[in-house]
Amino acid sequence: MNKITIDETTRDDATAMILRAKKRAGQSWQQLADAIGMSPVWLHSAATGMNGFPEEKARALAALLGLPDSVIEPLTDSPLKVWDQAVPTDPCIYRLYEIVGVYGPTVKALINEEFGNGIMSAIDFSMHLEREPHPKGDRVRLTMSGKYLPYANW
Amino acid sequence: MNKITIDETTRDDATAMILRAKKRAGQSWQQLADAIGMSPVWLHSAATGMNGFPEEKARALAALLGLPDSVIEPLTDSPLKVWDQAVPTDPCIYRLYEIVGVYGPTVKALINEEFGNGIMSAIDFSMHLEREPHPKGDRVRLTMSGKYLPYANW
Amino acid sequence: MNKITIDETTRDDATAMILRAKKRAGQSWQQLADAIGMSPVWLHSAATGMNGFPEEKARALAALLGLPDSVIEPLTDSPLKVWDQAVPTDPCIYRLYEIVGVYGPTVKALINEEFGNGIMSAIDFSMHLEREPHPKGDRVRLTMSGKYLPYANW
Amino acid sequence: MNKITIDETTRDDATAMILRAKKRAGQSWQQLADAIGMSPVWLHSAATGMNGFPEEKARALAALLGLPDSVIEPLTDSPLKVWDQAVPTDPCIYRLYEIVGVYGPTVKALINEEFGNGIMSAIDFSMHLEREPHPKGDRVRLTMSGKYLPYANW
Amino acid sequence: MNKITIDETTRDDATAMILRAKKRAGQSWQQLADAIGMSPVWLHSAATGMNGFPEEKARALAALLGLPDSVIEPLTDSPLKVWDQAVPTDPCIYRLYEIVGVYGPTVKALINEEFGNGIMSAIDFSMHLEREPHPKGDRVRLTMSGKYLPYANW
Amino acid sequence: MNKITIDETTRDDATAMILRAKKRAGQSWQQLADAIGMSPVWLHSAATGMNGFPEEKARALAALLGLPDSVIEPLTDSPLKVWDQAVPTDPCIYRLYEIVGVYGPTVKALINEEFGNGIMSAIDFSMHLEREPHPKGDRVRLTMSGKYLPYANW
Amino acid sequence: MNKITIDETTRDDATAMILRAKKRAGQSWQQLADAIGMSPVWLHSAATGMNGFPEEKARALAALLGLPDSVIEPLTDSPLKVWDQAVPTDPCIYRLYEIVGVYGPTVKALINEEFGNGIMSAIDFSMHLEREPHPKGDRVRLTMSGKYLPYANW
Amino acid sequence: MNKITIDETTRDDATAMILRAKKRAGQSWQQLADAIGMSPVWLHSAATGMNGFPEEKARALAALLGLPDSVIEPLTDSPLKVWDQAVPTDPCIYRLYEIVGVYGPTVKALINEEFGNGIMSAIDFSMHLEREPHPKGDRVRLTMSGKYLPYANW
Amino acid sequence: MNKITIDETTRDDATAMILRAKKRAGQSWQQLADAIGMSPVWLHSAATGMNGFPEEKARALAALLGLPDSVIEPLTDSPLKVWDQAVPTDPCIYRLYEIVGVYGPTVKALINEEFGNGIMSAIDFSMHLEREPHPKGDRVRLTMSGKYLPYANW
Amino acid sequence: MNKITIDETTRDDATAMILRAKKRAGQSWQQLADAIGMSPVWLHSAATGMNGFPEEKARALAALLGLPDSVIEPLTDSPLKVWDQAVPTDPCIYRLYEIVGVYGPTVKALINEEFGNGIMSAIDFSMHLEREPHPKGDRVRLTMSGKYLPYANW
Repeated sequence: MNKITIDETTRDDATAMILRAKKRAGQSWQQLADAIGMSPVWLHSAATGMNGFPEEKARALAALLGLPDSVIEPLTDSPLKVWDQAVPTDPCIYRLYEIVGVYGPTVKALINEEFGNGIMSAIDFSMHLEREPHPKGDRVRLTMSGKYLPYANW
Repeated sequence: MNKITIDETTRDDATAMILRAKKRAGQSWQQLADAIGMSPVWLHSAATGMNGFPEEKARALAALLGLPDSVIEPLTDSPLKVWDQAVPTDPCIYRLYEIVGVYGPTVKALINEEFGNGIMSAIDFSMHLEREPHPKGDRVRLTMSGKYLPYANW
Repeated sequence: MNKITIDETTRDDATAMILRAKKRAGQSWQQLADAIGMSPVWLHSAATGMNGFPEEKARALAALLGLPDSVIEPLTDSPLKVWDQAVPTDPCIYRLYEIVGVYGPTVKALINEEFGNGIMSAIDFSMHLEREPHPKGDRVRLTMSGKYLPYANW
Repeated sequence: MNKITIDETTRDDATAMILRAKKRAGQSWQQLADAIGMSPVWLHSAATGMNGFPEEKARALAALLGLPDSVIEPLTDSPLKVWDQAVPTDPCIYRLYEIVGVYGPTVKALINEEFGNGIMSAIDFSMHLEREPHPKGDRVRLTMSGKYLPYANW
Repeated sequence: MNKITIDETTRDDATAMILRAKKRAGQSWQQLADAIGMSPVWLHSAATGMNGFPEEKARALAALLGLPDSVIEPLTDSPLKVWDQAVPTDPCIYRLYEIVGVYGPTVKALINEEFGNGIMSAIDFSMHLEREPHPKGDRVRLTMSGKYLPYANW
Repeated sequence: MNKITIDETTRDDATAMILRAKKRAGQSWQQLADAIGMSPVWLHSAATGMNGFPEEKARALAALLGLPDSVIEPLTDSPLKVWDQAVPTDPCIYRLYEIVGVYGPTVKALINEEFGNGIMSAIDFSMHLEREPHPKGDRVRLTMSGKYLPYANW
Repeated sequence: MNKITIDETTRDDATAMILRAKKRAGQSWQQLADAIGMSPVWLHSAATGMNGFPEEKARALAALLGLPDSVIEPLTDSPLKVWDQAVPTDPCIYRLYEIVGVYGPTVKALINEEFGNGIMSAIDFSMHLEREPHPKGDRVRLTMSGKYLPYANW
Repeated sequence: MNKITIDETTRDDATAMILRAKKRAGQSWQQLADAIGMSPVWLHSAATGMNGFPEEKARALAALLGLPDSVIEPLTDSPLKVWDQAVPTDPCIYRLYEIVGVYGPTVKALINEEFGNGIMSAIDFSMHLEREPHPKGDRVRLTMSGKYLPYANW
Repeated sequence: MNKITIDETTRDDATAMILRAKKRAGQSWQQLADAIGMSPVWLHSAATGMNGFPEEKARALAALLGLPDSVIEPLTDSPLKVWDQAVPTDPCIYRLYEIVGVYGPTVKALINEEFGNGIMSAIDFSMHLEREPHPKGDRVRLTMSGKYLPYANW
Repeated sequence: MNKITIDETTRDDATAMILRAKKRAGQSWQQLADAIGMSPVWLHSAATGMNGFPEEKARALAALLGLPDSVIEPLTDSPLKVWDQAVPTDPCIYRLYEIVGVYGPTVKALINEEFGNGIMSAIDFSMHLEREPHPKGDRVRLTMSGKYLPYANW
């Protein structure tokens, strides 16, 4: 029905505006994250549609980057998390997938041994990425922290 | 050809023997790992066929658990890393897969920003799992460290 | 390596023994569940390898059905939850899958509206199945209860 | 053939108009559902193209939200129910899928024991979602009710 | 656990015994079906594990074919309906799949036009197969009859 | 290449024009089919691009619905039969798929017993859909008729 | 149920016996085919379970190769045609798959232009394979012949 | 970047222009192929983007159909051969796929017996389609000819 | 949100501009690669979005082909490497896939025997393609060189 | 049919015997290959069932490793090349798959530019693996050589 003009700012519009403004501002994710008081992992995922912003953080980011108020609402919606590739092809992301394939059963066994019959939450969860200096070449350090959730019995 | 008797110890035999002996010994992966001087993540993955043992570590484990020498050779082979489920179903392992789906592009973006055009190695790689005490419920902390590998240009 | 005799009771053995003993005893899942003080949904899933028993419940069930003590240990292990069919074919199970396909986005939207940006836990979770008498034909009532888990921001 | 102007309101147009009008009106699904005398689960699924409206309910909703009469017809069509992801990726929806994988065989076994050889209908079916207050954190309660359908023999 | 002797008759055993006894008896599915008062489509599907027998029909078939009483119980269980090939390869079965692909949307449209918003049940369902004599070559006539089930609104 | 104006009527245009004109005319598929002397199953499938029209039937339909002559040619082309979902999700179509999964091997066995080693054609094929009145609720009756094709030996 | 001894010759047994006897006899498929008056393509496919033998051909082959009478019945059954790899991996078979991918639409277009709206039958079908001498290297010539089947209109 | 006007003729443009001009000219593929001295199978595949034209053949076709010179270049490019459906759904193309599934292993066995360890090339390859008159209904005859390629040993 | 004009040069724009300018300039990949001091394999992959340019190489290429400065930035971004076909269909690319299927385990075995438990890097990697003159027909020679990466133990 | 004793040496038996004898002999693939005058890549692939041996090479290997004559025949058969994982999981093999995904279109483009419209053969093909000493860590060098095959036009 092309008589109706869709003039709202969508989630994708908001993402595009953030990426463009960030480039113009010459700021890194780390700098933006520091400025609004969040971590860069969370900020990037929220800015690209994999997490929802609390309203004050959306406002802070919009103010920082000079974005119109119309981005606030879509940024605070709870986004539908969708990915297309069951097995990712980009080498940087595939290596993470490979780690899950190789070490997934090990993580399960050690959680069960240390905590009991349960899992690490991916919801009550945070992740940080750091540079780990090393004489033979610096390393990427990824730290994940998720609440232990025991299975209910009833 | 059933005239030939297959009497060698296979990788699967070695794994089964380790699991049985570990249960009888009442030892945790942490305890076994401490005893042979490796980390529990590595030990579990190597014991269950996802990594190959250096010979001295295979000997140390065999001695510790009272296993026959015939397990040494299969434990030191370079194992074929195979997993059947492109998308894992066990909730504890699926959550890791979900983290890759949700945060994979974020990890790539931050590595590129911090290090340049490259990836985190999954080969020159290590991982540790710890309990993180927390007043609202303890947490699982997973720390991954992989060498940064820049893409070659030629 | 066929020189080693595997003589332990496996998870599958334990399941087979429970099903056989249940049939001989002429007991329903409801009756067994009442006898050990659990719900029938949980008991069936634990008996068929989709949940782990607390030790006292495993002992109670073994005693009730006259099973040997060797079933206790495998029943208390944290089982690897595996299913083969990404889309189930059995009509009774497919209908549940269809409900997720049709109403999944609705459940997400209503949880987000009522609770905020989060999910219903499938770990801190319970389910009951009841007969709902109805003049035009009795109905199956399934009640699920899962803890609301808000997404962390960090 | 671009000589023909397509000027009808489609199902997707109707959905977009409802979502926009709902946002402007600041009404929740619960409020809209109460106003037209349906449940919020049904209303959301019908508004987003997974169920067809009875004409009077379509008219009531259009009147309530100030939508043009042209939305009535597409809302009353029997929609083609299509979903793209055989395994959903959004965590909130995936958890429902996981529940089917883990507890599907249990639901089948208990229906068979309680009712006989048959299934729970997903057509003569309803679902409700409620907040379940709980001292350790409120819970989501999903109640499904489907007519028991016995297999025909002939 | 190989100390336990599994000596019960399984569903697969029962099927194998029926097929063997049928061959020895030189009876067609039509003849067996007439003898126990069921249709051949139903009998074949029940004999090969896709439907459950009412007890008296299982007894009648066992008596007719001289099978031991141990087949009764597995034949009356509600079978798990499983097929491996999402797209069947056997040409005779594939043609049916092709008919669903080509005419499925047509069947939906005509049911909706004739009956309203609903479906044809595959549970309250029967099917017959007959020879249709024809001068240019006899034809296979398949007749399906399923109860119309209207979607519930709630 | 946007210098060339594509001004022909495509198959999709023709389908869209038929559906629109049918709605305006307030005619059912049964009525249109009677008017041009074909069955409604065939007419719907041909109108929506799953069968090709003989020219006189395309002309008759165009005349009946007041469509331009430009629809004749695309309607008489042999269409490429394409469907996207190997396993259909719409419940009304899925039930047909389920019937093939459950009863496919039975249909094969009975065709082989009645006719010999061969199949039912899906090309020299027709299908009808009727309402079957029934005191417990009317039923959908689908009748398929396909030529028996014996396998060649050579 | 291991009390029942399965002592019939299966289809797989018959295939294995034919392959072994053929090797011992040092006969090619061409020679065997000539001896029983069939073509080698058909004979190989029937011997390996992709076609059913007429009884006299099964008897002729059994006599020729000195096989017991028990192979006659399984060879004359209508076999279930099953293949595991939707996309074959063996290079010799993959090339045929590739030809279908590249030239399939062309074959359809030319059949439609030459014959009308229909297909080439894969049931009333035969195929021959010959050596085609060529100065730059001999060629494989595959000739397929299938009855043209026009789509029915009804 | 919408400041750049893409004004070149693409491969798809060339295909569309050929199909339109062919329809207007009322020529069959056979007639066009004869006119430019190629076979109709090759011409159709090259015209629809599955083969590349030698320049003189592209010029001849363009002249014959009155197409602008801008089609020459895209027609002579080496096209990327892509098909979307691993298992084709159109019945006319599926039957070819089915032939590969049923007779693929037979073709391999007979090539190996007649030629040795190798394959039939799909690159040094040609195919022809003819009408084969037959009293019981004309047949489609497909003849494929591919160079025998022996596996290298090194 | 169509109020915002996207006027940046994207990666796809840059690729399209390079391909067009290359064609007009009548230069081969080898010639362009020589001119900017890189290899043709790397240049093609970087130009088509599978590798990122160092800034000076992007500037050199832009200068060489007369492209605007706006292409520099997108060419130097770290591209997301995505491919759609898990199994490629184009014959030239499929043959490479086939080589991995046939010789992959061999490459692994020989790397393990020669170097130890590790892999060949696909990141610290280069590849060259050359013509290898041969009396029976010239050959394509592909040379790959990747750093050996030993698995870490920890 | 368990009355027939299968006493022939299969392809899998032959592979197992070679691997065992090689281990006992303490020989590398390079040493074995040198001894029979073949390359190690070819020998490993032929020994593990991905290529067929010429008879004299099979005899030479059997003599070298002290294997019975019964291995000759299966080693000289043309093996069916089958792999299970469309996307390999082992990191060493996956990296090769990744190279095809990233550089496949590049290889095609450069072959087309250098040779014309054609491919590199995977049949008239050879591959070598070498150690490439390097100050920053030795490298694996893979060299592939395949005959250029031009597409036929006809």
